[in-house]
Amino acid sequence: MARKIIIDTDPGQDDALAILLAFASPELDVLGITAVAGNVPLALTEVNARKISELAGRSDTRVFAGADRPLMRPLITAEHVHGKTGLDGPDLPEPSMPLQDQHAVDFIIETLRSEPAGTVTLCVLGPLTNIAHVLLRAPELAPRIKEIVLMGGGFFEGGNITPTAEFNIYVDPQAAQIVLQSGVPIVILPLDVTHQALTTAKRIDRFRALGTRCGDASVALLEFFERFDEEKYGSDGGPLHDPNVIAYLLKPELYTGRHCNVEVDAANELTFGMTVVDWWGITDRPKNAFYIRNVDSDGFFELLTTRIATLP
Amino acid sequence: MARKIIIDTDPGQDDALAILLAFASPELDVLGITAVAGNVPLALTEVNARKISELAGRSDTRVFAGADRPLMRPLITAEHVHGKTGLDGPDLPEPSMPLQDQHAVDFIIETLRSEPAGTVTLCVLGPLTNIAHVLLRAPELAPRIKEIVLMGGGFFEGGNITPTAEFNIYVDPQAAQIVLQSGVPIVILPLDVTHQALTTAKRIDRFRALGTRCGDASVALLEFFERFDEEKYGSDGGPLHDPNVIAYLLKPELYTGRHCNVEVDAANELTFGMTVVDWWGITDRPKNAFYIRNVDSDGFFELLTTRIATLP
Amino acid sequence: MARKIIIDTDPGQDDALAILLAFASPELDVLGITAVAGNVPLALTEVNARKISELAGRSDTRVFAGADRPLMRPLITAEHVHGKTGLDGPDLPEPSMPLQDQHAVDFIIETLRSEPAGTVTLCVLGPLTNIAHVLLRAPELAPRIKEIVLMGGGFFEGGNITPTAEFNIYVDPQAAQIVLQSGVPIVILPLDVTHQALTTAKRIDRFRALGTRCGDASVALLEFFERFDEEKYGSDGGPLHDPNVIAYLLKPELYTGRHCNVEVDAANELTFGMTVVDWWGITDRPKNAFYIRNVDSDGFFELLTTRIATLP
Amino acid sequence: MARKIIIDTDPGQDDALAILLAFASPELDVLGITAVAGNVPLALTEVNARKISELAGRSDTRVFAGADRPLMRPLITAEHVHGKTGLDGPDLPEPSMPLQDQHAVDFIIETLRSEPAGTVTLCVLGPLTNIAHVLLRAPELAPRIKEIVLMGGGFFEGGNITPTAEFNIYVDPQAAQIVLQSGVPIVILPLDVTHQALTTAKRIDRFRALGTRCGDASVALLEFFERFDEEKYGSDGGPLHDPNVIAYLLKPELYTGRHCNVEVDAANELTFGMTVVDWWGITDRPKNAFYIRNVDSDGFFELLTTRIATLP
Repeated sequence: MARKIIIDTDPGQDDALAILLAFASPELDVLGITAVAGNVPLALTEVNARKISELAGRSDTRVFAGADRPLMRPLITAEHVHGKTGLDGPDLPEPSMPLQDQHAVDFIIETLRSEPAGTVTLCVLGPLTNIAHVLLRAPELAPRIKEIVLMGGGFFEGGNITPTAEFNIYVDPQAAQIVLQSGVPIVILPLDVTHQALTTAKRIDRFRALGTRCGDASVALLEFFERFDEEKYGSDGGPLHDPNVIAYLLKPELYTGRHCNVEVDAANELTFGMTVVDWWGITDRPKNAFYIRNVDSDGFFELLTTRIATLP
Repeated sequence: MARKIIIDTDPGQDDALAILLAFASPELDVLGITAVAGNVPLALTEVNARKISELAGRSDTRVFAGADRPLMRPLITAEHVHGKTGLDGPDLPEPSMPLQDQHAVDFIIETLRSEPAGTVTLCVLGPLTNIAHVLLRAPELAPRIKEIVLMGGGFFEGGNITPTAEFNIYVDPQAAQIVLQSGVPIVILPLDVTHQALTTAKRIDRFRALGTRCGDASVALLEFFERFDEEKYGSDGGPLHDPNVIAYLLKPELYTGRHCNVEVDAANELTFGMTVVDWWGITDRPKNAFYIRNVDSDGFFELLTTRIATLP
Repeated sequence: MARKIIIDTDPGQDDALAILLAFASPELDVLGITAVAGNVPLALTEVNARKISELAGRSDTRVFAGADRPLMRPLITAEHVHGKTGLDGPDLPEPSMPLQDQHAVDFIIETLRSEPAGTVTLCVLGPLTNIAHVLLRAPELAPRIKEIVLMGGGFFEGGNITPTAEFNIYVDPQAAQIVLQSGVPIVILPLDVTHQALTTAKRIDRFRALGTRCGDASVALLEFFERFDEEKYGSDGGPLHDPNVIAYLLKPELYTGRHCNVEVDAANELTFGMTVVDWWGITDRPKNAFYIRNVDSDGFFELLTTRIATLP
Repeated sequence: MARKIIIDTDPGQDDALAILLAFASPELDVLGITAVAGNVPLALTEVNARKISELAGRSDTRVFAGADRPLMRPLITAEHVHGKTGLDGPDLPEPSMPLQDQHAVDFIIETLRSEPAGTVTLCVLGPLTNIAHVLLRAPELAPRIKEIVLMGGGFFEGGNITPTAEFNIYVDPQAAQIVLQSGVPIVILPLDVTHQALTTAKRIDRFRALGTRCGDASVALLEFFERFDEEKYGSDGGPLHDPNVIAYLLKPELYTGRHCNVEVDAANELTFGMTVVDWWGITDRPKNAFYIRNVDSDGFFELLTTRIATLP
């Protein structure tokens, strides 16, 4: 039986590829996509989520709009990375499928209540605002969540929005703290991992070779996305972040990590939004997350390409 | 002409190897050794500095005692790493050479004043307390210092005393801040580098094969020292920290790094004592240090072994 | 027409007197009482709210239970001040009136939606958790709130739970930050004011002289409550906090204050939970609250006594 | 026998009046005046100290220049309060008496060594930089200091440079921390006290009535100084800070205070430079200072005027 997931996302080119990968995977049952403000404002991320659904031929997907701002801070966006629309690169038509009326947070709560306990996984590709709202509003549902698998943070590689902070966590560190302290089983796919999954020209060529609509769109997404990191990574391409969340669900054997304590700093200017990982167990702080540190990047791209090949 | 250095140190097994390497190197002129409280209290570090000098047959070396505590905090020591004496491992006799009467800080100041400007390099193997005292007392001498080359900090590998802090910086973060803001050219050999210089059994065997007093002592120092990190590194041995400072002076070509901003956090509990490195130049903060990130570890151990082979 | 208020509270002896004062005031229409965890756990505060309602002969009041913990921190309570029940002192029977089924946060949201915009005032006598939940869940309702009048904080008098922090803010500083940044008109009755409203023996005697059930209960509440502060204030009695919120609604002319910036520190151990008030306008930070600094304490107690005299 | 004092100062109009008061008091033996950077840069404060000495007819006073910057931060000055020279107001001639060659810190150290232990009091009217240098360089002298009496900090009145920080502490909070942790007996005259010592027109008139050079200069100093605070205090004049330090030595019975813990925040942006006073003993932190909270302001001005009347 397919694993039930809700994809919480702020697309974003790499979010788009993660969504495509999920759609292309029969092992996963996408109960809904919930949009959040992050890479670009909510008004764009919810549209982008629908564009991607239609691209994949999945216009029956239910897409919900959630929080339009972080819990306690003004919204910071990343148009310098993702372009003005958040999905710059491919030329995707305006979606004709509807946005659901229900608020994303209400949808997640209702789903967690109606589905059997321990069966729904939350795949989080953006700031953790929506998920924190769920946990603030209905803390009693925490034990019903099977797992939260998220892309965010970074420790050994430093940050991408400040020297110490990764974007998703930096945008809403209080939300991240609430999630990390919730007691829900958490798997973190940080920059330390995604910086091993580089979009080399050769890897992009494999998408090009698919000759499909989704293959072409993937090429356009990847080529736009890697531009930002070109200076850092040169011909190795840029890191591909969010699809790792879905790939982890499909093939956890590609990844290695460790249960350890992960805290978010929301107090200090110099390290604001940093995920502090007690990888070596130096402190007595509780082990509250499974922190992934390595990925078989060839295996990851093999999975991503072959799955997207199955889409139109 | 030999490069003039003052070794500021809190021996420590790895400090001892750094001192031996300096003594074994005709390119360096050791003007004096200044002891500071750190790995163990000052009363032990100054004795240890003399023990090592005598081991190397250099009982003519001038050894000075400096600060017995950090600028603004109580002293924290690391007997759990270095043993009760700080130099556990080899069986070295009590030194018979004298401790100099002059205070270490006064010696450094006097030396910077009397030697030609830009000719004296400070090699710092412990907390930066003594050096901060020099800069607080005689800030006008900063431009006369050729370079401060220090072992301390860490960013990509995390810390060794907390998840984010390295011991030397953690013990006296205010001293580190004063040094980093001094305008003196600074080279940092952090954990990120020293964790690449692992004391494998094979590398230790090369010291054993020397068949000399200093070779045998090196084996005893290294074998004691690596015990602490065995769990982390397994059969690869533990990282060898301080000798990298001397090796960098002798063969900078073994190392690669980058000029970038390095700040020390002394404000925040979660990241206290952390060195925040703007490796990618994300901020506008001034580039105040040359931060070494990689070492040719075989080259490093080759240098260390062949040089120590020249000692008695 | 009576002013519509919701009393959000964690009774507490002084909360109890505030509630009695509200019931005794025809100028106010108490739409409901919402309980929150604070002085004692939620299971007690909601019972206490009902006890007080019945004491006042107002068992028709709707009482709702809200948040049982702060947004992001474990609950801290103050049994050392309020006694085990939170309402130690008078001997009040267990309430027979029901607790409403609806969650306090839902009740407040529903009320703000159904009542005309700008007609409902929130009177907050405890940690700001419930109100923050309302603002997180339905930020679009902020402009519909007439005013938030709260007891909390302190600047010129220092704190009562730490040297710099007042209890209500300290318990949930993140909630306080959310409220202060909401743009809703806010009036703060801090320790600086309540420390001027001291329960002298003479003032207590006036309640005793009423010879009513509520008068006797007031005496018992006040006598228990002031015990904690006796050491500080001696024969002047202790400060009476929460009734100032209601008194301010009834007779604002008793109070003087100033519009200024008020920030809450939730970052720093030494000043955690502190309300930093820019009373003199030293900074450019926005004026986000009306901070009361003085009260006519005789006028306040006159009001309190004469009103409670009208209760059974 | 007169009490031996060193006046450490950054004049400053109010420093000037403090120095005049000391000169006018036979109970005090001014061993020297040490200048520090603060209200204006060191190059001006040392000149101002000499101007005041000559004004009082005390050109034999030894004046020393000390630290030209805080320990760890760039210098912040207060020309907006004190005018361009730091001593705007009276028209004082350039001094002809010499500046001593010795560094202020060396002078203090030498004096503490040469005078009998427990006989020298340090009167500190500016940032604590010089005193911190003394304690960093010669911590063994701490027990030889009779007392440090300082103007600085504030708790109940808030700050004067930020909402929470007083200028002297804000300029060099690390120096303040070093002094507060030194174990030396410390008396603090904070804003909480000096805001009770207001320079009313009537009080200034008494200086005018003296008809002396020093009387006239006092008027000019006071009238310039109070301009800054006029908006705050209206016709009550502004607070007179530094002379309270000297007045406390002469007539401690004018003051009341309490032994309590005083910490300086040097970690947090919102409260940077704040003195956190545990006035009520809420914490277990050690009582490290005698914090003055009240002054008999009429007695204070009586003392100040009658003493300055004895000067030329």
